[in-house]
This record gives sequence, structure tokens and C-alpha cells, in this order.
Amino acid sequence: MIIYARVIVMNKILVLDTTLRDGAQGEGVIFSLEDKIKVIRALDDLGVDYIEAGNPASNPKDAQLFKYAKSGLALKNSTLVAFGSTCRVNSSALNDEGLSALVESGCGVASIFGKSSRYHVERVLMCTPEENLRIISESIAFLVSRGIRVFFDAEHFFDGWLYDADYAVATLIAARDAGAESLVLCDTNGGALISTISAGVSAAIQKTGAHIGIHCHDDAGLAIAASMAAVEAGANFIQGTINGYGERCGNANLCTLIPNIAFKLKRQCLDPEKIRLLTPTARLISDIANLSMNERAPYVGRSAFSHKGGMHVDGMLKNASTYEHIDPEAVGNRRRYLVSEMAGRTALMTRLSTIAPDLEKNSPDTIRIIDMLKELEREGYSFEGADGSLKLRVLGALGKRRVFFQVRDFHVISRLPDDNINAQAYVKVLVNDQVEITADEGDGPVNAIDLALRKALSRFYPTLASMRLKDFKVRVVSGIGTASKVRVHIESTNGKNVWATVGVSNNIIEASLIALTDSIEYMLSESL
Amino acid sequence: MIIYARVIVMNKILVLDTTLRDGAQGEGVIFSLEDKIKVIRALDDLGVDYIEAGNPASNPKDAQLFKYAKSGLALKNSTLVAFGSTCRVNSSALNDEGLSALVESGCGVASIFGKSSRYHVERVLMCTPEENLRIISESIAFLVSRGIRVFFDAEHFFDGWLYDADYAVATLIAARDAGAESLVLCDTNGGALISTISAGVSAAIQKTGAHIGIHCHDDAGLAIAASMAAVEAGANFIQGTINGYGERCGNANLCTLIPNIAFKLKRQCLDPEKIRLLTPTARLISDIANLSMNERAPYVGRSAFSHKGGMHVDGMLKNASTYEHIDPEAVGNRRRYLVSEMAGRTALMTRLSTIAPDLEKNSPDTIRIIDMLKELEREGYSFEGADGSLKLRVLGALGKRRVFFQVRDFHVISRLPDDNINAQAYVKVLVNDQVEITADEGDGPVNAIDLALRKALSRFYPTLASMRLKDFKVRVVSGIGTASKVRVHIESTNGKNVWATVGVSNNIIEASLIALTDSIEYMLSESL
Repeated sequence: MIIYARVIVMNKILVLDTTLRDGAQGEGVIFSLEDKIKVIRALDDLGVDYIEAGNPASNPKDAQLFKYAKSGLALKNSTLVAFGSTCRVNSSALNDEGLSALVESGCGVASIFGKSSRYHVERVLMCTPEENLRIISESIAFLVSRGIRVFFDAEHFFDGWLYDADYAVATLIAARDAGAESLVLCDTNGGALISTISAGVSAAIQKTGAHIGIHCHDDAGLAIAASMAAVEAGANFIQGTINGYGERCGNANLCTLIPNIAFKLKRQCLDPEKIRLLTPTARLISDIANLSMNERAPYVGRSAFSHKGGMHVDGMLKNASTYEHIDPEAVGNRRRYLVSEMAGRTALMTRLSTIAPDLEKNSPDTIRIIDMLKELEREGYSFEGADGSLKLRVLGALGKRRVFFQVRDFHVISRLPDDNINAQAYVKVLVNDQVEITADEGDGPVNAIDLALRKALSRFYPTLASMRLKDFKVRVVSGIGTASKVRVHIESTNGKNVWATVGVSNNIIEASLIALTDSIEYMLSESL
Repeated sequence: MIIYARVIVMNKILVLDTTLRDGAQGEGVIFSLEDKIKVIRALDDLGVDYIEAGNPASNPKDAQLFKYAKSGLALKNSTLVAFGSTCRVNSSALNDEGLSALVESGCGVASIFGKSSRYHVERVLMCTPEENLRIISESIAFLVSRGIRVFFDAEHFFDGWLYDADYAVATLIAARDAGAESLVLCDTNGGALISTISAGVSAAIQKTGAHIGIHCHDDAGLAIAASMAAVEAGANFIQGTINGYGERCGNANLCTLIPNIAFKLKRQCLDPEKIRLLTPTARLISDIANLSMNERAPYVGRSAFSHKGGMHVDGMLKNASTYEHIDPEAVGNRRRYLVSEMAGRTALMTRLSTIAPDLEKNSPDTIRIIDMLKELEREGYSFEGADGSLKLRVLGALGKRRVFFQVRDFHVISRLPDDNINAQAYVKVLVNDQVEITADEGDGPVNAIDLALRKALSRFYPTLASMRLKDFKVRVVSGIGTASKVRVHIESTNGKNVWATVGVSNNIIEASLIALTDSIEYMLSESL
């Protein structure tokens, strides 16, 4: 039964995202059922061809997900794929629970992995090479007979090909002949050299004539280059994850690989308009996974187009192509100039001129502001991600900071939890000449202060009712132990805009108060 | 004047670390003078050939560093290199401040960068191609005449070579003829394809016969593969940074590149014994920079050899080479099995058996423990980096947790700072049948509770006097705003051992208290 000639647009590079399956094998990557549905929606918007959503046989959460999907998860662009394994050694594919789960998943497309390295067959699977070929062949034939399209993931293909090339190719031929639509060559351990990848893909194409996919891991920092080398050698199907999540060092990062394939290799892949969604999609999925974004990530990181060195910034201002390999907007990102001791005067001026357009490069005001920012950096402040606080400080140095309110006194008491009310805050604020004293209670001291403060101020500024905290992060910035300085970074929103502020102190409560009052003041000063 | 025939061991791949120079251009990377000296010591221990320590002309902190180095920073293995630029347009190298600063740095070796792209010469430097050649030639000749060894960093070499290959090569020849010891080809924007890198390096070697270096950036996720391709094409000198710090997406990460060169390309590079220092060096420098480690980093990340998926773990337990491309000890790292919902029973058992050796795989106790851990994960706990708390919870589930003390009541008051004493904590503890009530004050509520708690308990357990907090981290683990759940992760030490514990609550104070009491209990239970 040979049906590998299924019509495939040969020039297009198909994309399979496995964030929910291989990505979820990464340390700290945990998705709830609801998270998974959100991720699927985001990937469908991005327009990847296939979404490998999980393993219905091994994980009850995934089984639930497929059940939910079956009942109507209408996708616009993508096709859902269920993942599983070949049947057990010395047992028939016909009554294999895992394979049945794939059929019952209702997906219509399944990825199944099988061994293609004779070493692994003999040492891990502990069966004969022939038995492994039977397993591959029968498992795929079974799924195909039930109307399922099958991608065969050839586990350890490249290691296996170096160990016994003929056997590795034999597993591919078994899969092809059983009806697999694509043969996906996996560098499971992530240790293969680029030259091995190129040669292995070429051999697979030559010997099978099949549609070939590539699935790389980043254990040697080569997943992107290896996937590109595979495409150049003739593979038409790439696999990876958003933000490179995955076992150990992670999988090929689709946020890097997709623009490389589309813009650098100039191959048809995702639509360029969709590629503009990459940065927001990467951030959304990192939010869903509740993992901090790697801000240095190519294309989608916050730093990817951030310029700090004085000379680079001067060059950028003359001509953006001097220090950028691509237009940040092509991937939905943006250019930034950083405030730092290394940023030359020019860079800082570019930033400051958006705050105070009249400021001149060598004026005493400018010098004073630069000195102030350096001093604050020494204290542990970082304004790189806190534009709200930066603006307030600069306006303050120029005598242009409006005083909306003053916190004259506060204390907060935290105690053993009682009905989830475990913190009480007292605040006394001064607005013009009027004093307002109030109190509130909350989940923890920062929450209690936030509530009490906005309660006191909303008498004067009703707009504050729409404000809420979006994110709250704490990190120790120097020294050791709880007596060290802490930097509190918060993001606030009024539902429309988002702004970020920062506070530093050796007391987490005081640092939080600084960031909170900056946030409130920024909202009022911008009339957000 | 042709002195490029300086004797170089041609088969050895020399390593230049530029963490302190190009690395410090990275967002959030800030080194104090003391930090820089610590980094230099760590790099010298690691044994890189060259340490590019900074730009004495552009940054007062760097000037101070070189002054300090001159007065006697006896290095064992490495040579310090000062970084600067070619002289100004239409002005002589003889009285250029930057070049003089390189001579006065006392380093003996200088890296200077110059333009090798005609596009950049005309559009950014805004001078004639000939004037740029003069600048390169005179600047290098000046340094050489003062007895300085020079590496020429050919900025934008690969972009320039695609734009005007003859001109790009002409800049290299000018540098070589003026006496540069090595010509370092830079992919300054990090966007070059591997094929361009290979061809550019080959052309440079063929046209100049010089010692060629490679300096790549990671904007397309290709810095490692590009640097390796350069070495395969004949470059003998690699440049990069520890942890890949650097402008935008960073530089080639030496923690990945060095083991790849040594173990995968099998070229002589750092001594294998030194390569075992890579993991501790990467962590030390990330501590000095006060940046969180990228735990997914190849070779040196905590996750690099961490196994989570059930099948992978089962394979690993049969044969470590099944899912590892290299022995973690070769780079000073170690293998870990993670506790998670996806870890099969086998993986969890491997972990649990170190805590409770008698536990059997399918016993009711084991099932109860697994259920408990899953429930705690759902609440926001993560035991992946908190072995102390994991052990206590498991012993608790087995009825083997000793009760050393109970916290019966506490409250903490935070107020406006007054002489740095801004938090007061009251605690009431019960040890056996004895009650101890006490209080203390500290910098912030967590510090105050920590002090009060250990004060109360040290009456019963004097050993607690040696304990102190080493690190304290907070992150929001679900929802939004300050009312979300927070996870507090602390590391404690008694000067000899380090242990980690975790607490989760919607109140940061309560989460801290859980982590603190776990930490104290762990110390007592282990008799540390």
C-alpha cells in the first residue's frame, strides 16, 4: 500500500508547532487545559499549518483537550495533530491502546514516533531490528486504515544514520510504504553537526523520495542552523515550538526559524502579514505559560532591536540598516534606544527628547539629568523597562513634575491569614491642602496598600477607579538575604493603556510603594 | 612593514572573551569596577587566551580598570586586551586620543575596530573608501610602532563582502600590511547566513594568508553555527561572551561554542580540564552581573541535562546516551530528573528513592505522595528548584516529618522608614510544650520575620545562629495584580551547605513565612 504521493505544495515549507507537546516537556512549562486552548487559538491566528496538541493516551489533560476539540474547536488556519507512539513490542497494532486513542482523538492527523536507530532498538526497545520495522509498519498501516493521516517521527534519525545508515533508511521506507504522509527526521538529542543534518536529509530524500520534515533540539545551540540546513537540503516541513520551549535546552524556536526561512532563505512559509504576529504571539504564549520571556531572543525579544552602545546608536540614527539585520516591524517588534551609562549622549538625547523636546544636548539640565540617572542606576534602579518612572524623574529634575498627592504616613500589618484577609493598610495622603486618612484590607501587604491608596485618592481623582495592576515582579538587586535591596517592577493598566514603573529600597514594602505611587502619578499626569 | 608572520600555533583555536566589552553592551548588563575584576579572575581561571576588558578611551570605569590592571593584576593563563577604534576621519593617528589611551592602558595587546563595508564607509563614516584605508593602516601602524600587538576587528565584514568584496578584502590587506596580528571578521548585525560566513572566511584566508578570527552576533540565532563554520573554513580565533551577553540578541555564547569546538569539531581549544569549569564560571558571571541564568542554555543551563518526559526518563535510566548528546560532567554540569505531572512513575521514583529508600513504585504511599505533589503544583508550587521543601513534604506525607516548632501567631508592621528600621515583627512559637514570644526589627517585613523567628527558636536550637539567607526571589504565579498568588523561593546557607525552599500564598508575607520555616526545619532535620 503506497499512498505517499499525497498532493503537497512542494515549494511551501509547512510548519508544525509542538509547543503543547514537546514544548510542555520543558522544565517549568506547565499548561492547564484552559491554557492549552488559549495557545491553540493563538497558533491558529498565527497561521501555522499544524498544531501538535498533545498525547491523548499518556496524559488525561490531553485526552480532555481532544475531547473538547472534537466537540467543536473551529480553527481558521491550522489543523490539530495528536501525538503518540508506535505499538508495543511483540504485540499487535490492532488492539494497542495508544493507537486507538489517536483514532478516537478525532484529529484526523497523527504524529507517531518510532525508533530509527538500531542502537536504540537493541539497547532501549530491546527487540530485534526486524521487530521494530514491523512495529512501525503495522502501527502506521493501522492508523491509515482508520482514515488517519500520519506523520512518522523518526526518533534519533541522525544518530541512527551515523551508527547504521542502511537500517535508519529502512525504518523510513517501512513508514513510507505503510502510508506515512511525511517522514520527520529527528535530532532527538540535539547534538548533531550541521554537516550530518545536511547529509542525512539528502540521503533520506534520495532513498525514499518522500516528503521530509525536520525536528531539531538545541542542546548544542544549533537547532536553527540545522533546521535551515535541512530545508536547503530539501526538507519541506519544519517542526519547533514558540519561544523554543522543550525538553532540556528546548526545541528549534519557531520565532527565529520562521522569519529565517521566509526572509533569509526566501522560501514560502507563513504569510508575511502573519509573521508580523510573531512578537505578540511569543509574548502571549509566554504569559499563558507564566514564564518570563527571553528578552534576548532573536526577532521577538525586547532587546532584539535595542541599541545601547554609543557608537551603535549614532550609526542607527544615521541609517537603521547599519546595526539591524531586518526591519523590526516585519516581525511585529520595535526598535528601542536604551538609557545607560554606555549610551552616548546622543542615544540618551533621543530618549529624553520624547520626554522634554526642548532639552539641548550640552545644557546644564541635560548634564544634571544624566548624573541623576547614573546615581539612580547605582542605587539599583533600572529604567530600561520602566518608561513611566523615567519620565517622572526627568520631569522632576526639570522642575516640571506636578504634585498630585503626597503620602504623609502609612503602615501595613500582616498577620496569620483569617478568611483570606491577612493584611491591613492605613494611609494618610495630602492632596492640595486636604488630608484624607483611610484604610483597607487585602491579600498581602502590597495589595492592601494599593487598595487603601487608591481609595484615599479616588475622592480627588475618580479616574483611578479604572486602574489596576497587571504585573508585579520583585528581584534582589545587590547583596544577599532579605536585607538586600529589592527592585519592584510593576505594570499597570486602565484597560486601554499599559505603563511600567519601578521602585528600589531595602524594604520590599517601600519599593512597592514607590512603584505604586509612580504608577498612580503617571496615570494622572498623562490623563490616561 | 609586514610583520604578520608572528608565530601562532596554527592548529589551536584561540579564544577571546569579550564579556566585559561587547557583553556589557547587552541590555541589563552592568558591571561595576569590582565586578569587572571578579570577571577577569574567573575568565583567567577558565583559561581563555584573551580577555577584552573594555575601552579605556570611552568609559571612565574602564580607564580605572586598566589603571588597576597595570599596577599588578597577575593573570595565570590569560592576556588582557584593550579595545578601541581606528583614528578619526581626516586626522592623524599620531595624536588620536583613543589610540593613545590604548597605548597607555599598558595592555600590550589591543583590538581596534574599523569599517570594512564600503556602504558603511560612505553612509556612516561619510568619507572616501581611500580615507578609510588610510585610517586603518595608520592606526594599526601607530600602535605597532609603540610595541602593541593588534587584532583588527573588521566591522560588518560579511555584509561588506556581499556589497563590495574587493573593498572588504582591501581593508583586511591594509590591516595586515600595517602589522595586525589577527584579522577578525565580524558579523556585526548578526544576520549573515552560514554559507556567507563560510565563503567570506575562505576568501579572506585565500586573499590575505593571515590569521583569521570570527566574531558573530546572534540576531538570527545562528552565532554558534556561524562561528563553527568559520573554524571549519580555516579561522583559528573565536570571539564571544560568557552566557552570550551582548548588544541586542547577544554575542556567540562561549559556553556553547567552546565545548562544540572541542568535543564536536574535535579541535584543540581550552584544555578539557578547564572546560569542566564552564558551568560554574557561567553561574559565577551571571551572579556577578546579577542576571538570572538562562537555565535552558546548552551545556551550562540547569535544564541542559534535565529529564522530564516519562519515556525519556525511562530511556535515560536504561542508558544515559539515549537522550544526552554528551556527558554533563565534561562541562561541569549534572543530570537531573524532574518532578512533574509528566514525569512517569519511574522518574518520580528515582527522585523519591533518594528521600525515602523504602518506598515502592505502586504502594498506596507513593500514589498518595504523587497526588499531593500534583495538588501542590496546581496551587502554584514548583519543587523543581526546591529540594528542601520537597523532602519535608514527602516525609510529611509518610508521617515521618519531625515537628521541631510551630508558629502559633505572628504579625509584622511595615511603616515609613525611620533610620532604616521600617519593619517590626512579633512572633509566638511553640517548641515541645514551651512557648516563646519575641520580636525583632529589620529592613522590610521578611527580614524582620526572619530575624524574629530565628531569635525565638535559637533559645532551643543554637545552631540556627549560623544560618542566613543567600537568595530571595518572588514571582507572581497566576492571575494578575498584587492579589495574585506569589511564589517565594529562598536559598539558605550555614556557610557550608546551601538548600532551597519554596512557599506559595496570595500573601507575599505568608509565602515568605512558609519558605522560611521550611528552611529552618530543613536545617534542623538534616542537622546541618
